[in-house]
Amino acid sequence: MHAQWVLNPPEPPSMLHQIVDNVKDTLLPHPNPNAFSSLRNQPFSKRAFAFFQDLFPILASFQDYNTHKLKCDFMAGLTLAIFAIPQCMGNATLAQLSPEYGLYTSIVPPFIYALLASSREIVIGPGSVDSLLISSMIQTLKVPIHDSIAYTQLVFTVTFFAGIFQVAFGFFRLGFLVEYLSQATIVGFLAAAAVGIGLQQLKGLFGIVNFTNKTALFSVLKAVWTSFKNKSEWHPYNFIIGISFLCFILFTRFLGKRNKKLIWLSHVAPLLSVIVSSVIAYKLNVGEHHVKDYRVEVLGPIKGGGFNPSSLYLLTFDARVVGHLIRIAFIISIISLTGSIAVGRSFASLRGHSINPNREVVSLGIMNIVGSFTSCYVASGSLSRTAVNYNAGSETMVSNIVMALTVLMSLKFLTGLLYFTPKAILAAIILSAVPGLIDLNKACEIWKVDKMDFLACAGAFLGVLFASAEIGLAIGIAISFLKIIITSIQPAIALVGRLPGTDAFGDAQQYPMAVNIPGVLIVSLKSAWFCFANANLVQERIERWMTSEKVKDGKGGENTFTHVILDASSLTNIDTAGIASLMELNKNLTSRGIKLAIANPRWNVIHKLRLANFVSKIGGRVFLSVGEAVDACLGSKVVPV
Amino acid sequence: MHAQWVLNPPEPPSMLHQIVDNVKDTLLPHPNPNAFSSLRNQPFSKRAFAFFQDLFPILASFQDYNTHKLKCDFMAGLTLAIFAIPQCMGNATLAQLSPEYGLYTSIVPPFIYALLASSREIVIGPGSVDSLLISSMIQTLKVPIHDSIAYTQLVFTVTFFAGIFQVAFGFFRLGFLVEYLSQATIVGFLAAAAVGIGLQQLKGLFGIVNFTNKTALFSVLKAVWTSFKNKSEWHPYNFIIGISFLCFILFTRFLGKRNKKLIWLSHVAPLLSVIVSSVIAYKLNVGEHHVKDYRVEVLGPIKGGGFNPSSLYLLTFDARVVGHLIRIAFIISIISLTGSIAVGRSFASLRGHSINPNREVVSLGIMNIVGSFTSCYVASGSLSRTAVNYNAGSETMVSNIVMALTVLMSLKFLTGLLYFTPKAILAAIILSAVPGLIDLNKACEIWKVDKMDFLACAGAFLGVLFASAEIGLAIGIAISFLKIIITSIQPAIALVGRLPGTDAFGDAQQYPMAVNIPGVLIVSLKSAWFCFANANLVQERIERWMTSEKVKDGKGGENTFTHVILDASSLTNIDTAGIASLMELNKNLTSRGIKLAIANPRWNVIHKLRLANFVSKIGGRVFLSVGEAVDACLGSKVVPV
Repeated sequence: MHAQWVLNPPEPPSMLHQIVDNVKDTLLPHPNPNAFSSLRNQPFSKRAFAFFQDLFPILASFQDYNTHKLKCDFMAGLTLAIFAIPQCMGNATLAQLSPEYGLYTSIVPPFIYALLASSREIVIGPGSVDSLLISSMIQTLKVPIHDSIAYTQLVFTVTFFAGIFQVAFGFFRLGFLVEYLSQATIVGFLAAAAVGIGLQQLKGLFGIVNFTNKTALFSVLKAVWTSFKNKSEWHPYNFIIGISFLCFILFTRFLGKRNKKLIWLSHVAPLLSVIVSSVIAYKLNVGEHHVKDYRVEVLGPIKGGGFNPSSLYLLTFDARVVGHLIRIAFIISIISLTGSIAVGRSFASLRGHSINPNREVVSLGIMNIVGSFTSCYVASGSLSRTAVNYNAGSETMVSNIVMALTVLMSLKFLTGLLYFTPKAILAAIILSAVPGLIDLNKACEIWKVDKMDFLACAGAFLGVLFASAEIGLAIGIAISFLKIIITSIQPAIALVGRLPGTDAFGDAQQYPMAVNIPGVLIVSLKSAWFCFANANLVQERIERWMTSEKVKDGKGGENTFTHVILDASSLTNIDTAGIASLMELNKNLTSRGIKLAIANPRWNVIHKLRLANFVSKIGGRVFLSVGEAVDACLGSKVVPV
Repeated sequence: MHAQWVLNPPEPPSMLHQIVDNVKDTLLPHPNPNAFSSLRNQPFSKRAFAFFQDLFPILASFQDYNTHKLKCDFMAGLTLAIFAIPQCMGNATLAQLSPEYGLYTSIVPPFIYALLASSREIVIGPGSVDSLLISSMIQTLKVPIHDSIAYTQLVFTVTFFAGIFQVAFGFFRLGFLVEYLSQATIVGFLAAAAVGIGLQQLKGLFGIVNFTNKTALFSVLKAVWTSFKNKSEWHPYNFIIGISFLCFILFTRFLGKRNKKLIWLSHVAPLLSVIVSSVIAYKLNVGEHHVKDYRVEVLGPIKGGGFNPSSLYLLTFDARVVGHLIRIAFIISIISLTGSIAVGRSFASLRGHSINPNREVVSLGIMNIVGSFTSCYVASGSLSRTAVNYNAGSETMVSNIVMALTVLMSLKFLTGLLYFTPKAILAAIILSAVPGLIDLNKACEIWKVDKMDFLACAGAFLGVLFASAEIGLAIGIAISFLKIIITSIQPAIALVGRLPGTDAFGDAQQYPMAVNIPGVLIVSLKSAWFCFANANLVQERIERWMTSEKVKDGKGGENTFTHVILDASSLTNIDTAGIASLMELNKNLTSRGIKLAIANPRWNVIHKLRLANFVSKIGGRVFLSVGEAVDACLGSKVVPV
């Protein structure tokens, strides 16, 4: 009777139908009980407020905002600005842009994000990985970049397209796309990017003038070696200043970790380094009459003057490059989302609330589009700055706004003071962020849990290091998916035995106490698919097992089987090649007087077996469970031919 | 106690280890009880015979060979030659080679294959699909092919490399590689190749002189259209002769199918057509004094003179093309193996014995290497000729040898008679094979059983038709594997209920009679992996289900759950992202006073969960089966917070 349940299931949804269902479920919004639309019967004022709150989640924070929270946010915002200003200038030089663009990018994007986002912790600004990617990928374009203005045009255009992509991802609820970068790939990618970032800083640290723009290991080492040979090209002062302040910054961070009370020291250390090193550089350089004769390479004149200038007229849609720019923007938009969402998720869970990924993605996109109009390049959520914000006790996104205003003020009044800031000090500040990108602990854990994951991690790392960011990512993604394919189609089978004292059956290797049923060979598939890629191999293996030592009963004698039971419970699907192999297996077994039975087939499997008329071929021997199949086999035991 | 079995399994082999095991099991030979090496203690004569028999399986056929079998093989071989000669000449013209090369390819390769192969049915010769691939792919090379000698050089070199690839595949036991072309891909590919072959024949059928060499639909139709506009280019006699004999050949085949006694008619029809049409062409063309003025396009002078000339000096390893040739050879070697192995398998199973794929692959490879030295191009097992051989009553591979000798004789004595054979008749003979390549029934069946498979089939078909053979194959393979990935990582979960009157639990959609356990939500995963690509989505879905209508008990009231049981039996593996999601799920459930339990985790899954310390986080609630988990949950029922 139970077998009838197995044999006559309702028709399962087709694969296409299932895919559509899954896509729908992933993409369509799920009703939010607090959303505007659920307030139809409320008074107008409440509905209006809910509507604006839906649009600008920051309004929700204001409902119970008080002077204490304001004080916390204000202090956090100031700390953030002090920490972020040198870092943003450094990242801008990493992106081969003039330092003021880093500051611009810390004004408009955080402000817009603060208004739109659902997160309460993320701090927005130019990231080091994004900066590196922008400079290394735009330089591979086969268009001559004569001057920095043409280059800046390309950067803003990439920012614009990246924003468009992000809005599209969020709008079509494709926030889940970032999931396809497995953690292993990200760990490897970031570590290699960190190495690339570190290598690029050798330029600033040594004050090398003719340096490669490539990030690949060999090019950089070669450039360093060349400049070492022509010693005239660099001045040791650059190196001494850079290294000393790098040590200082790292030391204050170490102190802050040891003693939580000293953490403010690590927050102000970068700005302090900038000020002190600028004074030193001024002293060393004074007396020389031309910038080129300076003993310490300095930033020189920086455009200041206040609020971000418009960059709308800089966007370029030149047909020769726009295709490349869109490709670059796609990669950068994904990478920058991955980082931002991961930062948002981890800090939200620290505070015990959750973020809405699609909402975040749209906010990041709008922020980048507006940014590209106002002289900002790609901005994203920064891990180090978000951590500073959290430690400084911020309560809401107001801290982002305070930071933006502080950066704006400093841009208006203080850029003149940056003339004598050594380039080496920016290199030191970027270098101090490199260790945070290399997560050796995680890599060790990945190695311990899954060697194939580690391969993806190592592949991404080596790919980025020796080829390019795109190739590294492609390797990581390919290995991650290859792993899934391999286990889904591995032609492996397991011997199944009865677990003593229960009705349950299990893999004899997993449960060594399992006992064989005399005369019945029970095998289960380790793969999820029985298809063109493994069907013949599995069939051959089952036939070989019939005579192999492994499955004999250990009593020295031949174990003559009368039945083979295929435990199909792990099989998620089967295709026409799989069915053909089962038919052949059945034919071969029948010719040796052995009967084939199928136990616990899943919905799609039994449906396809019935469609292909296989069930009648094996005399309807399909059972609800291995136990029922064994009972039926032993009950009808026949003398083998 | 049983939970302890689950919690303390032996350590499973690592994924790398499993892969190595699977590869070993696939690649290493399994002892053959009749093999030479197992005869160590036998007398020398027996061992020597076994050794030679191992090398040349045809010797085994001679053990019980008699005059009856010889007569059968002889008649089959003669029939084969009569059937094959026109077909081989046609295929050679399809490959843009002079017709005699098709005959050469029917002499040496079948002879060598007959000595080496384990099959007893396959008939070897130039195939139409291989011929089409060779001509279409070599013509895409960016080397100028001034004369037919340079082209012939490239063809022989491709044949040589294809042979090398095949020997390598067989030697490293990679015969299973052909499995990765799913049946759906092959059906679509062959159908499109058949259309391409058919279109190419329009040239011969219309006697068009300036014709495109491309196979893509648009190019051919354009060329036909152009030649229709310039009517002077073709003579209607070509078309009339071609179409009439095509109808004749198809009619005899129809007769043969209706009445088995008339099947010999379909075997001799092609040769008969060649003879009769040559006489007609002679009559029509006589009186003209120059070939160019002939009213019917004829083959003209064919080099005859007997045995295959050496082509060793023709092999070219020019650095500019050798890379391309190797790529082409790789694709052709796979395609030609796929066809040969499929033909061998299906006819072997008709006769009730089996073939050894790796042995076959090596034999095909050696045959092609030797062929490339003796003016033969790529040969493979031909479906139509193997069917003729089978119908003509052949007993052993001797029929292949008889065919080779007959073709050799005709090449020595009869080529002069082929001068007036119309090109249109060869086109008709090739066209008559086209319907056999288009398997509409199979395509319908694929559509019925699996829509995604049909997508792979249609993709391969359209890719070959509108782009190229390589792109079509790539599309088919990509869709086939995409299907596996999609089902392995689909973020779908199923509600599980108890099947009434049993201890078993099942998918509530598959078994509509399943009943829910009040207070316990049991979900199973439909995917085989719980990993970076679906972990977050599955986690969110489970949390959403807690409040969704679907899983309420239908009595109108809220169903307050105290436990969630995750039935992990379908899960073949989990990765770090999956474990992280489970951790978060457990945290979120715990905060709502709900306990999480895992039922029936498989070997790799429980091992990784233990490594990541997840088992202790859920209080050791891991059970052997859903039933035990439910018992444990209900026994320790707690008041929800």
